[in-house]
Amino acid sequence: MDRWQALTDVPVYPHLVGLAQKPFDLTSPGALAPTRIEQYCCSAAGFDLLYAAQRVNDEVLARLQELADQCELVKQFQQMRRGAIMNRIHGFASEERQVLHTACRDLFAENPAEPVATGQAEREIAKLRDFLEDLENDTLTNAHGRPFDTMIHVGIGGSDLGPRSVYEALRAYVRPGRQVFFVSNVDPDDAAAVLRRVNLDTTLVNVVSKSGTTLETLTNESLIRGAFEAQGLDPAQHCIAVTGEGSPMDSPAGYLRSFYMFDYIGGRYSSTSMVGAVMLGFALGIEAVLEFLEGASLMDQAAEESELQQNLPLLLALLGVWNHTFLGNATVAVLPYSQALHRFSAHLQQCDMESNGKSVSRYGESVALKTGPILWGEPGTNGQHAFFQLLHQGTEIVPVEFIGFRHSQYEEDLEIEGSTSQQKLVANLLAQSLAMAMGQKDENPNRRFPGNRPNLILLADRLTPKIMGGLLALYEAKIVFQGFCWNINSFDQEGVQLGKVLAGRVLALMGDGQEEGGADLSPEMALVKMVKMGRE
Amino acid sequence: MDRWQALTDVPVYPHLVGLAQKPFDLTSPGALAPTRIEQYCCSAAGFDLLYAAQRVNDEVLARLQELADQCELVKQFQQMRRGAIMNRIHGFASEERQVLHTACRDLFAENPAEPVATGQAEREIAKLRDFLEDLENDTLTNAHGRPFDTMIHVGIGGSDLGPRSVYEALRAYVRPGRQVFFVSNVDPDDAAAVLRRVNLDTTLVNVVSKSGTTLETLTNESLIRGAFEAQGLDPAQHCIAVTGEGSPMDSPAGYLRSFYMFDYIGGRYSSTSMVGAVMLGFALGIEAVLEFLEGASLMDQAAEESELQQNLPLLLALLGVWNHTFLGNATVAVLPYSQALHRFSAHLQQCDMESNGKSVSRYGESVALKTGPILWGEPGTNGQHAFFQLLHQGTEIVPVEFIGFRHSQYEEDLEIEGSTSQQKLVANLLAQSLAMAMGQKDENPNRRFPGNRPNLILLADRLTPKIMGGLLALYEAKIVFQGFCWNINSFDQEGVQLGKVLAGRVLALMGDGQEEGGADLSPEMALVKMVKMGRE
Repeated sequence: MDRWQALTDVPVYPHLVGLAQKPFDLTSPGALAPTRIEQYCCSAAGFDLLYAAQRVNDEVLARLQELADQCELVKQFQQMRRGAIMNRIHGFASEERQVLHTACRDLFAENPAEPVATGQAEREIAKLRDFLEDLENDTLTNAHGRPFDTMIHVGIGGSDLGPRSVYEALRAYVRPGRQVFFVSNVDPDDAAAVLRRVNLDTTLVNVVSKSGTTLETLTNESLIRGAFEAQGLDPAQHCIAVTGEGSPMDSPAGYLRSFYMFDYIGGRYSSTSMVGAVMLGFALGIEAVLEFLEGASLMDQAAEESELQQNLPLLLALLGVWNHTFLGNATVAVLPYSQALHRFSAHLQQCDMESNGKSVSRYGESVALKTGPILWGEPGTNGQHAFFQLLHQGTEIVPVEFIGFRHSQYEEDLEIEGSTSQQKLVANLLAQSLAMAMGQKDENPNRRFPGNRPNLILLADRLTPKIMGGLLALYEAKIVFQGFCWNINSFDQEGVQLGKVLAGRVLALMGDGQEEGGADLSPEMALVKMVKMGRE
Repeated sequence: MDRWQALTDVPVYPHLVGLAQKPFDLTSPGALAPTRIEQYCCSAAGFDLLYAAQRVNDEVLARLQELADQCELVKQFQQMRRGAIMNRIHGFASEERQVLHTACRDLFAENPAEPVATGQAEREIAKLRDFLEDLENDTLTNAHGRPFDTMIHVGIGGSDLGPRSVYEALRAYVRPGRQVFFVSNVDPDDAAAVLRRVNLDTTLVNVVSKSGTTLETLTNESLIRGAFEAQGLDPAQHCIAVTGEGSPMDSPAGYLRSFYMFDYIGGRYSSTSMVGAVMLGFALGIEAVLEFLEGASLMDQAAEESELQQNLPLLLALLGVWNHTFLGNATVAVLPYSQALHRFSAHLQQCDMESNGKSVSRYGESVALKTGPILWGEPGTNGQHAFFQLLHQGTEIVPVEFIGFRHSQYEEDLEIEGSTSQQKLVANLLAQSLAMAMGQKDENPNRRFPGNRPNLILLADRLTPKIMGGLLALYEAKIVFQGFCWNINSFDQEGVQLGKVLAGRVLALMGDGQEEGGADLSPEMALVKMVKMGRE
């Protein structure tokens, strides 16, 4: 294909529009037959995707396969993994970069898809291994020879949300005596709250910024360095860096060690690069890092399968396209039935919405159809006592992606009224899926459930480092496939620039800077006036 | 009014539909004039609401005033505060209850709006004061005479999200040496993770359940009691209860103290009752609790003002109705520029979506218009490095409610490049508001910002207990006003029932319970089979 097509120009598009007029009715008698539940299951890399509760039938699935084929989705994914310049807007100034987050976990095959990037990843992992061994052997200690037991991870956006959600997810496996805190917000209370909780004497600060110039991160780093100095400690003996080679932060004078990130990996796709791996290695050890990467790598391979119903990431992506583009639902909720995944939806929210919240195609044309949905979510069962009311009986239809595990992490469980907590957790997940799909009639109109609320279940045995790697890679691939399908560039973020420019202008006005008053006041100055007016 | 009208039957409705065809254009030259910014500001209870970046003009505001008047929104609010049975579906079996969350903070006027409920609240506060003094004087200690320094707050949904978000918001004011943890999820890993972090010997467990029968809460309570027993400690000497009078949990044999919650306060509106106050009193002391309640009370009073542009909660509510019902936006984002409010959007998500995610009117009729939106959000500036891409350039329009403060809580700040972190935080908030409203032209289509993305700014001096109380009450009143406007019952939650029933059925099947196999398998059993199949 010389030129990727708009979704509306793909031959199968009108057929899917037609089918969407009368989607599969999940509330009809026998709709959720056992054969449907068994057959609408796709497995890969330790996950089962159960999608019987989607509003699809075999005909829709066949058309979605045609969509995948006509858009050459798998081929594009393969090209991406092999180093094609996918981060670009043809005909306009753009980032013009490869997209190779998959390369930094492509460590387990004899022939990696893109050997140069994988070679670079291997060198960084070797550096990480040395660093962790030096900590272990007390070769690298604080000034008094005491081992470091705490890490403050300083980043924002992609350098924060992914690593943070992974740490929270795998907290059960953290090495005894080690702990990690995260600081991201430019809000000074964020750093202050963390600084009150740690013993700086045995704390490493891991500063993560590709450019070495991110305003929030540098501000927080300065705040934290100041705290070390206030205690008579030398911050350079406590800081390490994850940054681009040659950036202002790539400096032995300021940092004990530097690990590199590369411009072919976007921040929101960087959890399996050094951005996540340094923190994870400190907390869990190098073996867990390798398991994490292996899980991600297995899922990347699964995404190259050409059959839709055998390709778990592609299937997840196209069911999402069906719900959003064809059935017209504005949002998607990701609801993990696992407290450990309590920050995973926030990470996905970033990864998905920053990638696919776009309005122009890869050729700079305005898109005719809606692109990325609004993604949100909180862990179940908590949500059942919260916003699930709207999911069941509200007027907005929210497609739901449940995530569940057969076993808990700690295995500290108790049988109460004949079942364990983990069994109750899984039972609730299944029950919610069925309730949303099938609904319920009632004579009391306030107790009616309309049903036909599409949902699916992602199921794995246990949330281990390997499974967490797979889960991250699964959603990364989903997002990429959907971006290909909507024919947008999922890898840039021009939409964050205007705010940065205006923030600089406002900041100048907030200090001593004064504009003339009266009717000529700029909106910036008028707003600043409102803020200053109320000052205590 | 004998019968509340459907929104479509209110005389002003067609006028608003007409005006929504051509909403105010925020991108036109001079649209954000200084006079507009100054005039579109409403203040109450320590808050300024800046709404110049909404797609409204004076005509729309006049029509929204008519809407408020024709729906008698303020009158209904007054009736609610004075004890009317607002939690009902006329003509059908329903809860038939008063709605009196406002009464438990109506402690500062000579004549409370509903004296009976306020009297009950006063008695509970007196009990709380005694309890806190007993802790202070070492009258109430653990078995060895050591003071309690830690609390585990066990609840779920309304008994969890509100108190948790308040604790996080006010962490800066926690008394030295005291700390609170929260356990909510039936996921056993949730309790296990907390139990690993506390010293049970000096820990109080605060179990919160109105009925005393909430499955998740009882399960977690049992898990935690088991942990005490495993350490040779008597759990009855460590547990306190917040529950309904006469519930199974209202028992001196099992709990050191019991505090009461009443059936006229729904869980999601209960943060200012003992549900939040016991935890907050332990963490911050009784004076902070009273300030918190006073802030809420001030906002309740502000909500009785009849002029729309002088009534901050009503204005917030009707701007939301304009964006959702008339401009057709499915969601609303609440974005606090304050790390301390990092769980506030999750609380609001519950409070709003459980209240207004309904499909039948207060008379059991299907609603003609959409009711409650999907509410979501994360703190800025983090979001700027995440989902803001979609807010600026995506195809879904998301009305935004920013929350900001002129001063930080800790005042531990540093001037970098000529400005403090707090100034940077506020500058970013203002810049985002302007960027979303005004947009930007560019020759490169990928760098264009369409603008006209409605947003508003809620501004206060500093996030104190009093301001936090006001913020909670503001959003509670917003939700209530919107529910009145859509003519739905915002106080029940029938939509959570079906899931509970099905969960019981699934749970029975997950143990030894077996159904016959083959094509007659129920959907429940077929799903359980899929879960069991993959077992390790």
